[in-house]
Amino acid sequence: MEEVLIREVGLRDGLQLVKKILPTEKKIEWLNMQAFLNFKEIEVTSFVPEKIVPQFFDSEEILQAAKSISGLTSSVLVPNFFGAKKAFELQAEKINCVISASESHNKANINKDIKSSITELSEIVSYNKSLENRSKIGVAISTSFGCSIEGEVSNQKVLHLVEKIIEIGVDEITIADTVGYANPKQVKILFNSLIRLVGNLDIFAHFHDTRGLGMANVLTAFDLGIRKFDSSLLGLGGCPFAPGASGNVATEDIIYLFNSMKISTGIDLKDLIILCKNIGKFFKSEALSGKILSAGIPKNFN
Amino acid sequence: MEEVLIREVGLRDGLQLVKKILPTEKKIEWLNMQAFLNFKEIEVTSFVPEKIVPQFFDSEEILQAAKSISGLTSSVLVPNFFGAKKAFELQAEKINCVISASESHNKANINKDIKSSITELSEIVSYNKSLENRSKIGVAISTSFGCSIEGEVSNQKVLHLVEKIIEIGVDEITIADTVGYANPKQVKILFNSLIRLVGNLDIFAHFHDTRGLGMANVLTAFDLGIRKFDSSLLGLGGCPFAPGASGNVATEDIIYLFNSMKISTGIDLKDLIILCKNIGKFFKSEALSGKILSAGIPKNFN
Repeated sequence: MEEVLIREVGLRDGLQLVKKILPTEKKIEWLNMQAFLNFKEIEVTSFVPEKIVPQFFDSEEILQAAKSISGLTSSVLVPNFFGAKKAFELQAEKINCVISASESHNKANINKDIKSSITELSEIVSYNKSLENRSKIGVAISTSFGCSIEGEVSNQKVLHLVEKIIEIGVDEITIADTVGYANPKQVKILFNSLIRLVGNLDIFAHFHDTRGLGMANVLTAFDLGIRKFDSSLLGLGGCPFAPGASGNVATEDIIYLFNSMKISTGIDLKDLIILCKNIGKFFKSEALSGKILSAGIPKNFN
Repeated sequence: MEEVLIREVGLRDGLQLVKKILPTEKKIEWLNMQAFLNFKEIEVTSFVPEKIVPQFFDSEEILQAAKSISGLTSSVLVPNFFGAKKAFELQAEKINCVISASESHNKANINKDIKSSITELSEIVSYNKSLENRSKIGVAISTSFGCSIEGEVSNQKVLHLVEKIIEIGVDEITIADTVGYANPKQVKILFNSLIRLVGNLDIFAHFHDTRGLGMANVLTAFDLGIRKFDSSLLGLGGCPFAPGASGNVATEDIIYLFNSMKISTGIDLKDLIILCKNIGKFFKSEALSGKILSAGIPKNFN
């Protein structure tokens, strides 16, 4: 039986656009419940300054809580060396750095040009190598399929960036459609090139469903051999520094997609729906974009 | 350049669950505008008794208006011989009969068992042959991927039904996922068998996005060679006699999917968005499920 890994990013990407601050104990409850449901990897928080994204005021506490859950791989997102250093101090298992394929979004998101971001990544990787207890280092490439500030982003830009990242030496790469611009044809072309380029390096596909093509893009990447996907509970998510960004593909919908095709996710959809309802209560006023939660599981679905 | 035909079903399937009655002049405006935007085929109304679906009180007038639009193929849906007879009297160009693959939904939808529906289809086809001005006859097979009353519907049931329909002799078949149960794996298996079975007979794929897999299913059918798709403006739609049914794949989203992949639809997305906004005003209170309308077209999209 084929298997996929679904990495939950709701507590990081999902919460970025949520105005109401989710209390720490609620975040920890969400984290524990989702790990209990057999999610093997969760991006748990973001080490960005509280004044920039107040939602992550409690990032240290959340990472500590995540680390105490046995069997769970937890990752944290960091925008720069400063954030990475905090994550190293807390001995984060996996640190995801972020660089945009589009110059304008990199500037808007982390206030640097791409070249400086690459230099900083290199410093983060070197620093990690100097440590006794090393973290895994991932890189998420934002706006890989287009940018709502500057428009088209060529595959060449993405591939060139990936080459540089491979030279630096990281443990995984996430290809992110930050603003929901990707279409299946583009996914096919870019991922085909990427798969040839990266060799054995892990690739995560990270799609947003802003324009309704999220699941079609996931399916296309799966058909090409990608087996690791990001998603966000309730379809929450979006980058606060990319105009018009909105929700990730919903975790419950991606689990429904794969379970319905008899591809193993390790997750029971009925249990997951109960978790969605529980967590969803908090977000009444926010736009929740998942579908299976309101439609319900098909009759006699197993 | 590859081409697809998108048949608009908003004025039929789309309006079925809409409680507020759309005035005749608004329906005719919608029809004319959409034909003006280069839509080549529109399912314009349903010849069901007004007491059952009040929305279609003006079906004769709508069909007459559609027939007056040059270059447009208009079809009407009929549930039985009585409805077909009315459509024949008005010399409808194409008449779509409907039979469910699930016995319980056929009963709920047209109050007959499948066997009686097949007999009636046979009578409709014979009657058509006796006419000087014949109509084209299509058949939509509802609940082809599952039924919200009885659950799973086997591919064998659908294929068996298609065999009988081919024996009777019709001009086209529509495979409908009435309740949004289809997944891409199932679409692949069923359409592969169907394509072998039907030879040169036209197949339309008709998906609902009830559980978020609409676009992934469209893409899968396209990859197998299907080039004709139903969709509904604003993602309206759903069968009043299938519990939990909801919107068709949204026309603007399916046009976005294909246009973004450089597959010709003949439709300009920007113009279509203007039409959506115009028609959408009427449905303020209804749940509109399309995505591209609220998200907006990507920057520099052509």
